Amino acid sequence: MAADLKPLGSLEPVAGIRLGTACAGIKKPGRRDLVVIECAPGTQAAGVFTQNAFCAAPVIVAREHLVSSSPRYLLVNTGNANAGTGARGVHDARACCAALAAQAGCRADEVLPFSTGVIGEPLPVERLVAGMSGALSALAADDWAAAAEGIMTTDTQPKGVSRVIGIGGRTVTITGIAKGAGMIRPDMATMLAFIATDAALPQALLQECLVRAVAQSFNRITVDGDTSTNDACLLLASGVSGVTLDEPATRALFQGALDAVCRDLAQAIVRDGEGATKFISIRVEGGRDEQECLAVAYTIAHSPLVKTAMFASDPNWGRLLACVGRAGLADLDLECVVMWLGDSCIVRDGGRAPDYTEAAGRAAMSGTDITVRVQLARGAAQTELWTCDFSCDYVRINAEYRT
Amino acid sequence: MAADLKPLGSLEPVAGIRLGTACAGIKKPGRRDLVVIECAPGTQAAGVFTQNAFCAAPVIVAREHLVSSSPRYLLVNTGNANAGTGARGVHDARACCAALAAQAGCRADEVLPFSTGVIGEPLPVERLVAGMSGALSALAADDWAAAAEGIMTTDTQPKGVSRVIGIGGRTVTITGIAKGAGMIRPDMATMLAFIATDAALPQALLQECLVRAVAQSFNRITVDGDTSTNDACLLLASGVSGVTLDEPATRALFQGALDAVCRDLAQAIVRDGEGATKFISIRVEGGRDEQECLAVAYTIAHSPLVKTAMFASDPNWGRLLACVGRAGLADLDLECVVMWLGDSCIVRDGGRAPDYTEAAGRAAMSGTDITVRVQLARGAAQTELWTCDFSCDYVRINAEYRT
Repeated sequence: MAADLKPLGSLEPVAGIRLGTACAGIKKPGRRDLVVIECAPGTQAAGVFTQNAFCAAPVIVAREHLVSSSPRYLLVNTGNANAGTGARGVHDARACCAALAAQAGCRADEVLPFSTGVIGEPLPVERLVAGMSGALSALAADDWAAAAEGIMTTDTQPKGVSRVIGIGGRTVTITGIAKGAGMIRPDMATMLAFIATDAALPQALLQECLVRAVAQSFNRITVDGDTSTNDACLLLASGVSGVTLDEPATRALFQGALDAVCRDLAQAIVRDGEGATKFISIRVEGGRDEQECLAVAYTIAHSPLVKTAMFASDPNWGRLLACVGRAGLADLDLECVVMWLGDSCIVRDGGRAPDYTEAAGRAAMSGTDITVRVQLARGAAQTELWTCDFSCDYVRINAEYRT
Repeated sequence: MAADLKPLGSLEPVAGIRLGTACAGIKKPGRRDLVVIECAPGTQAAGVFTQNAFCAAPVIVAREHLVSSSPRYLLVNTGNANAGTGARGVHDARACCAALAAQAGCRADEVLPFSTGVIGEPLPVERLVAGMSGALSALAADDWAAAAEGIMTTDTQPKGVSRVIGIGGRTVTITGIAKGAGMIRPDMATMLAFIATDAALPQALLQECLVRAVAQSFNRITVDGDTSTNDACLLLASGVSGVTLDEPATRALFQGALDAVCRDLAQAIVRDGEGATKFISIRVEGGRDEQECLAVAYTIAHSPLVKTAMFASDPNWGRLLACVGRAGLADLDLECVVMWLGDSCIVRDGGRAPDYTEAAGRAAMSGTDITVRVQLARGAAQTELWTCDFSCDYVRINAEYRT
């Protein structure tokens, strides 16, 4: 089940980047669960990681390696998160980096490790190492679709997107893939997303571009409010196109394309949220600052009562208004709040809008995509985020996850 | 379905308090949905109400009336919350108070209105008024059980408790009833709870006793994190027993009994939480202050991933540890955190405790009552709260609520 998630479109190769996958039998046999991404020498990398204080071993090691050198390889496994594994987990992550480095002929700190899957089980290092040679020998520039599949856990579909832009008569490509369906309320990053471009950017600028894009994409989605221990989003710039971004105008062009790639990937994660049947956009306007707009938007997005009403296509606007009321805004005058479901004004003057009809509310809820808009009428700040509904399948998926 | 909620025991009459119920047909015909509670002249009343900025019309009116006079009657309806009804809602609540006052022979501001049920529908004032005479003529001192049933909404069972204590050779009775099963994360009060005693307390002391008791009972439970618009908890002291609480020792005795009544009622609400199959106690110790203990406890209690794992009796401790990590505690050293499921230590030194076994975890989850204990090891503060699991039935109940 997924809320109108489009099948994977064609993903453009990025010059300087090759990908290889293997079935390493990490959790289940015969499933693509190991992905290696190779970067041309000189590739710059920017990364954002989970803000969960309990971060997974691979996050600790990837952060370290990013500081000490530029990456030549990304090593990604699914089926095991290597989280809650203490000192042994960090040791295991390092051992995997060293094993790949030995096979590929680079330094261990030129390998960045990423893991996703069950928390608290020891990483099956031997199986990972055994699978590496297959992934390395499969490396190819056009294997983005297989890699998108290889990083999935409870995802029902692979997620990826490409944008190609022209800069100074030459072509720059941005391609990204992402996974994630549950434990999604990214805080500085999402579950796992890997984005690459052949543009040439210095590392500091690359990081700046990534942080800007993530703030309005991966950091504006939530499935269940549970920030993962393994969130990571990497942006690689191989520079092989030779296109540099020296002018403000070309930087803006690149940033716009990167923003679009990140937003599309982030929205794909929500559409494939565990058990999702609805894709819900929540827009909050008229706040004193963005923080209070976010407080209202997340209170709505995390409310089990709102999410179950969305599942039922029930325009239960009282639950929405109760969320606005408990979002913790000082001196909030509910009489001034206006609220819309789709294009229908549902709340005005502290109660149901006089011209609202249940039929109009039901019509606004009938499709897969639902928009909630809240006008706080006390300032000029605004924000938007995306979430999905809460279905019986969400409970079933998460009650059965480890069995 | 309910998590081992005991059937209603015998509820002791409270001298000076009478109760009457009626079927007013507010939402469904033939259902007890109107309750009148009569207080002897001179009864003192203390109340705590929802902190949701979007509070319901009856909450606004009850607060006003509590300030201007001592109540003679409480008027409670279920089936309609009279919330999100704007100026009309306040007018309707006042009209009901005036109608009851006219029939009973008191002033309108001696009536406190309470409503619970669907948000956003106009209150059917005529049906309420028509039902009042039946409720008034049924007034009796021993009708607490019928009143407990009359205030139910999605509750599967009525909830009530009595405590009788001896003070200075005389007897003081405290009896309380409560309702609530969803939209439960009280903030200064719970859905609806009415508690009465025949002890004689001045209003200021009564309010102090109630605030203390509520802080460790109704304000320590959550079903779904959704603070209701209609929360109210009233404590009535008729004084008819003639027992006053002049000594610190007798006050402590009374406070202890009141605390027990409130805790039993609050825990009954959790056990009857919508779709609940598990009753979960979350104890957090070793915090720098109570606030950070509460932050960790509520993060666990509100996590859909933890709640679905509880539903599955799955000792998925990684989800618990991930909650501790995202609770927002500054400088938290995960290496120092220790965690228990029941009596089994599950987490130590940043990972799974070496002596933990899956069998021990499953044993700790197998019963209806589950205890999670977290030791933060950075201070002396502690707290405890209670919640329930998240089942398919929770989704079904809330998706079908208005249909």
